[in-house]
Amino acid sequence: MFDPVEKLKEFVSFPSVSTDSSYQVGMQGAQEFVSTLLQEMGFTVEVVPLERHPLIWAERPGDPGWPHVIIYGHYDVQPADPLNLWKTPPFRGTVIGDRIYGRGTADNKGPLITNIAAVAQLLEANPRLPLRITFLIEGEEEMGSPSFGAFLEKFQDRLRGADFVYLSDTALPNKDQVIITAGLRGLALFDVHVISAKGDLHSGLHGGVLRNPIQALAEIISTLHLPDGRINVPGFYDAVLDVQPWERAELKKLGADEKAYAEFLGIDTFYTPPGYTPAEAIRFQPTLEFNGIGGGYQGEGTKTVIPSRAFVKISCRLVPNQRPDEIKRLVIAAIRARAPKGVKLEFVDQHQGEPYVVVPPGRPNTPPDQSPVLARAFRAADEAVARIWGRPPIYLREGGSVPIIAEIKRVTGLDSVMFGLFLPEDNLHAPNEGFSLTVMKKGIATTAAILAAVAAG
Amino acid sequence: MFDPVEKLKEFVSFPSVSTDSSYQVGMQGAQEFVSTLLQEMGFTVEVVPLERHPLIWAERPGDPGWPHVIIYGHYDVQPADPLNLWKTPPFRGTVIGDRIYGRGTADNKGPLITNIAAVAQLLEANPRLPLRITFLIEGEEEMGSPSFGAFLEKFQDRLRGADFVYLSDTALPNKDQVIITAGLRGLALFDVHVISAKGDLHSGLHGGVLRNPIQALAEIISTLHLPDGRINVPGFYDAVLDVQPWERAELKKLGADEKAYAEFLGIDTFYTPPGYTPAEAIRFQPTLEFNGIGGGYQGEGTKTVIPSRAFVKISCRLVPNQRPDEIKRLVIAAIRARAPKGVKLEFVDQHQGEPYVVVPPGRPNTPPDQSPVLARAFRAADEAVARIWGRPPIYLREGGSVPIIAEIKRVTGLDSVMFGLFLPEDNLHAPNEGFSLTVMKKGIATTAAILAAVAAG
Repeated sequence: MFDPVEKLKEFVSFPSVSTDSSYQVGMQGAQEFVSTLLQEMGFTVEVVPLERHPLIWAERPGDPGWPHVIIYGHYDVQPADPLNLWKTPPFRGTVIGDRIYGRGTADNKGPLITNIAAVAQLLEANPRLPLRITFLIEGEEEMGSPSFGAFLEKFQDRLRGADFVYLSDTALPNKDQVIITAGLRGLALFDVHVISAKGDLHSGLHGGVLRNPIQALAEIISTLHLPDGRINVPGFYDAVLDVQPWERAELKKLGADEKAYAEFLGIDTFYTPPGYTPAEAIRFQPTLEFNGIGGGYQGEGTKTVIPSRAFVKISCRLVPNQRPDEIKRLVIAAIRARAPKGVKLEFVDQHQGEPYVVVPPGRPNTPPDQSPVLARAFRAADEAVARIWGRPPIYLREGGSVPIIAEIKRVTGLDSVMFGLFLPEDNLHAPNEGFSLTVMKKGIATTAAILAAVAAG
Repeated sequence: MFDPVEKLKEFVSFPSVSTDSSYQVGMQGAQEFVSTLLQEMGFTVEVVPLERHPLIWAERPGDPGWPHVIIYGHYDVQPADPLNLWKTPPFRGTVIGDRIYGRGTADNKGPLITNIAAVAQLLEANPRLPLRITFLIEGEEEMGSPSFGAFLEKFQDRLRGADFVYLSDTALPNKDQVIITAGLRGLALFDVHVISAKGDLHSGLHGGVLRNPIQALAEIISTLHLPDGRINVPGFYDAVLDVQPWERAELKKLGADEKAYAEFLGIDTFYTPPGYTPAEAIRFQPTLEFNGIGGGYQGEGTKTVIPSRAFVKISCRLVPNQRPDEIKRLVIAAIRARAPKGVKLEFVDQHQGEPYVVVPPGRPNTPPDQSPVLARAFRAADEAVARIWGRPPIYLREGGSVPIIAEIKRVTGLDSVMFGLFLPEDNLHAPNEGFSLTVMKKGIATTAAILAAVAAG
């Protein structure tokens, strides 16, 4: 079998930044790398063109009566900037001790290679394994999967026959504790532009007669939260599902160390909604964050200008059962109502995704019609994780978003088994992203064990 | 005599952006252009090295007993960005109809060439004119003249013997009405940085536990003004001098057209402090403006990050007798007091300048010890402007800043005659800066007449 660490290094060397069109060559390189790898493992590979970047659809030939798992992953990565903060080259996989560094090592190239390696190992050990396996590996995840929904709609008939989706694009709290993700936050993103005068103005000749768009934007932004950390938008919390007692109990097993978390973040004060610990707030509460702001002169020295416009990029993380369309409508309505006189507003819609929740077997709120193959996968995970990692997994909702999980459920009816593989120190979406080689090794063994158990029936 | 329009085109062709070190060649070209021009007119030129860019000191040899005028100007310009909004190349003087376009045509290359041409004309007509003329032309004005103060201190003995300073770096309301500037606003500039976590964070994995620095910065910014337009900083207005009745009366002569002004700005609502018209607010009231803001991801698409920091560039325009040091102290104290918990603040000091006021002869508050040569210059201006422009000048304080005017007064005791030459439509510090050729022609005749009258005694 191939060396998974060497394969990951090669994968990282393709700078597959999907949101920036100047990385087209890196995107194609990463796609061809994955396609070739799966072909070499005996899979039939189709490259399905989507809106911006194609999806890799790879199938293991097999008997239609076998259980059928779809393994999801993505070959695209976040932009690497700010480049000056990287200690190793972002697009060269660099092993230091037990870790490998580089953009995408954790999100999602490392976990994807882990699952591909598990399948390779399993098939090498048992070439006649009675399991249908389909890989769906997209290249638009970091863009918010803009065409994955249309892809699902188009191919829903081919997908509906499967039993469940398996993926590793979620987090572990530490190297010893596996989390199986029982839910994900949704996303609603848009930009707000505030426009004042029709052009930039000299702040001496015209200063004192009009509202500065930076001031107007700041006034708007400052109304969107209450001092206690809640979001100050009418109706924002209306659809939020109450947390189940077993979810809080599972979370307690983590034994969250708030002091260490604050140190990791480099802050001295948490800012969470009342009634929620930091660990709970991330998992069970929605957010309204500002991802970027800009306007006027940002260079060296000074430019005494009154800018004509300023903007902020807003993203809301949503929990079940908030709907992204509705949340965008509410936040935009609040902004319109609160904008000061004398400025114009423009909104630029960005992507969005529904929140998701799945309940493992045997819980008070497990759906009575849960798929038996899915339930078998969860039970196999309990057993394999306890054996390989020394402790059973914890079932938790997570703060991150994999919007396509909710989309898969809506279109095909399939639930997902989300086996987390990246650690808090892995710096996702930030400089010095990295991935633990120990986690990778245990991950390969666990995925192989779960898939073997599903096949065994 | 030289053709002033052709000379101005040549002057504009040197991209003399003083705040950006990549324009060193343009700075040197502009300096050498002016030095050569004045040498050709018979001036003795010294290039005085200052902190960043040298000052041109050019003297006309003459009798120590003659009246002595110092003509000030600057050969540096503002950055030209945003470049995509220019309709003509910023560093090529382009004549369209009665106007010339290009960076610096109005601020200050056009007005400076106007005054140099006036001197050239005067000396050509009367080579034995009994007037000492010294040009001081600096290259650091758009940086806030960081070393002009030290220059004045060093050379104060050579400068003290002069009678007054003459310059054209202020505005006209229209092509028919001359303003002689009786005051200028001062400046106090600094940047505020807000720092939250020690690095950028994934907004899914960590969103909901810490205060976003963009939110914190917006909260701070939104406290700095009251809804009625006044600045909400304790003590900010304490030193502000009351407006003299004759100043309001002079301003009324302008017959301000607020509707046209709003249309020019492209706004539908003015935002001025209570009790001040827009024209009054610009001249008689201080400001606190935001010249630029930045933080997080500002590129195409989205990046779901919680940035670790955000900044805003603040500039205050000050009126007599506000002091920049004191104003910075007050604003920074207010910001420190209002910053939310959980973020750190850093302040980066930028430049500053004192406000200035001069009272022409014959007003109720004219200083009893006013220099007779200065009074003669003001009276000559009244006569020449009435004759050449068809109306006497209006004496007004202006909204812009030429911080070195107050510095000259403080160090050498000299007052300044500020003969405005640029128009509201000249787009100073903005794309499509331009300058009226009619104003240039009349300006040459007026400056020549004033200097001739001063020489005549």
